[in-house]
Amino acid sequence: MNPVAVVVTGKSSTDAVAQDMSLLDDFTWQGASAMEMQWRVERFLSRYAACIDDDALESWPAFFATDVCHYEIITRENVERGMPLALMFCTSQGMLFDRIVSLREANIYPQRWYRHVISNVLIQSVDEDSLTVQSNYVVFQTRRNGQTDIFSAGKYLDRIVMRDGELKFAEKRVIADTHRVDTLLVAPI
Amino acid sequence: MNPVAVVVTGKSSTDAVAQDMSLLDDFTWQGASAMEMQWRVERFLSRYAACIDDDALESWPAFFATDVCHYEIITRENVERGMPLALMFCTSQGMLFDRIVSLREANIYPQRWYRHVISNVLIQSVDEDSLTVQSNYVVFQTRRNGQTDIFSAGKYLDRIVMRDGELKFAEKRVIADTHRVDTLLVAPI
Amino acid sequence: MNPVAVVVTGKSSTDAVAQDMSLLDDFTWQGASAMEMQWRVERFLSRYAACIDDDALESWPAFFATDVCHYEIITRENVERGMPLALMFCTSQGMLFDRIVSLREANIYPQRWYRHVISNVLIQSVDEDSLTVQSNYVVFQTRRNGQTDIFSAGKYLDRIVMRDGELKFAEKRVIADTHRVDTLLVAPI
Repeated sequence: MNPVAVVVTGKSSTDAVAQDMSLLDDFTWQGASAMEMQWRVERFLSRYAACIDDDALESWPAFFATDVCHYEIITRENVERGMPLALMFCTSQGMLFDRIVSLREANIYPQRWYRHVISNVLIQSVDEDSLTVQSNYVVFQTRRNGQTDIFSAGKYLDRIVMRDGELKFAEKRVIADTHRVDTLLVAPI
Repeated sequence: MNPVAVVVTGKSSTDAVAQDMSLLDDFTWQGASAMEMQWRVERFLSRYAACIDDDALESWPAFFATDVCHYEIITRENVERGMPLALMFCTSQGMLFDRIVSLREANIYPQRWYRHVISNVLIQSVDEDSLTVQSNYVVFQTRRNGQTDIFSAGKYLDRIVMRDGELKFAEKRVIADTHRVDTLLVAPI
Repeated sequence: MNPVAVVVTGKSSTDAVAQDMSLLDDFTWQGASAMEMQWRVERFLSRYAACIDDDALESWPAFFATDVCHYEIITRENVERGMPLALMFCTSQGMLFDRIVSLREANIYPQRWYRHVISNVLIQSVDEDSLTVQSNYVVFQTRRNGQTDIFSAGKYLDRIVMRDGELKFAEKRVIADTHRVDTLLVAPI
């Protein structure tokens, strides 16, 4: 059973999450308090956002664990319909690197800048090895003409682990409300 | 005197807030430090956002206290003109439930998804029973065609209490900058 | 050498930032822990946002130090091209006051409301006197017709100091992704 998947399949589980969440307010994880982990997780997500926004995509795969790695962009529509078809699907750090190489090579199209707002970060559950974390994101894009608009809004469902003293994504699912397809090659979100 | 109302009526009080706020940086409330309360309040707001964004509206009234309950959506324009006319106004948890029932029954219109960004959460004042908290919100909506746009931006003025060990809204005022009226029935913000 | 400037000039330094940032996760500054400073800095930025959003601009210069003061709005395009031309450039608190006076006097144009979302606040480096902090911002504007749209998205690069027990900006650089010029007179961001 994937603990993250439970959260997005249907209303009944979501209701349960809303009601049970208070139970998770206090915990310790690897010696750290819930409040400290909140701070560390938010910091980790902010570094992730800065990496993409600063167009330092070559550093992007390093946010993922090497032993377990799942990265997926899927529309909320597909999740709710139970269709597993993803816009991007990687199951190893090597696939993440390949994705960046493809992006760099294919980038003959007018470049754009991204700007992430990651908010409402909620640690939802904890087990010995990992934290399950939900957050809302909105990515804004600015085209070369200087206009900024909404690129994608949705939520992150992350499973975060500790490796060599650093937080890493073991799993990152991007559930996108937005499902426009005006970009030929999908960039990381 | 309603301590929340003071904040939004005119510039002079706002100035005072900006200057006095530093005085409130450190406090204890029901045995918790200011930093801990910041974390708990943000977590509470994030759960509130997740409830609406996950379309778990049946759980929405449970975020409010049962003994005191005030929920209001009002435009900033009306606040600044001193006109009390609200887009939504509920003074009991029962009225909140009724609102959700109406929304569910009336929903013959194309559904949309909401996504909240709640940011810049500021605990403004503290008394024995409650915290007064201001935050900025932007709600994005995605229609079934996959396009995401801005539904509403504004600020929350909340009075938060503790009931049975859980935070609850005793009062939540949504002061909306946006005042479009393209939705027949107003959803919670 | 300006430690803030290093961050925005080119990809190589950005990569370095992404990789080195974990080294800064734990520190103490003027007796406070990294987690406590995160809370205090976020609170400071939230008060800054509230000042502008509440149109309390007369209080805006007070967020800056009096002995060192640098405020700048510059487009990301100009930063990446190495062109120092800024949309707004002030090097004293007096210049900030002048800017507000001009704004108030010139305001014969239809007024608009601003709403800040400041997210992903990252303390990047620390020295004895100051903190270097990066954050993402998006400012939404609502015109008098009630429509809300994106005014500016980008990042803040701040150098924050302590003066008389209060945090102040010694330097605030607003690096705007957006470079539309539909406002005659630039408002603070």
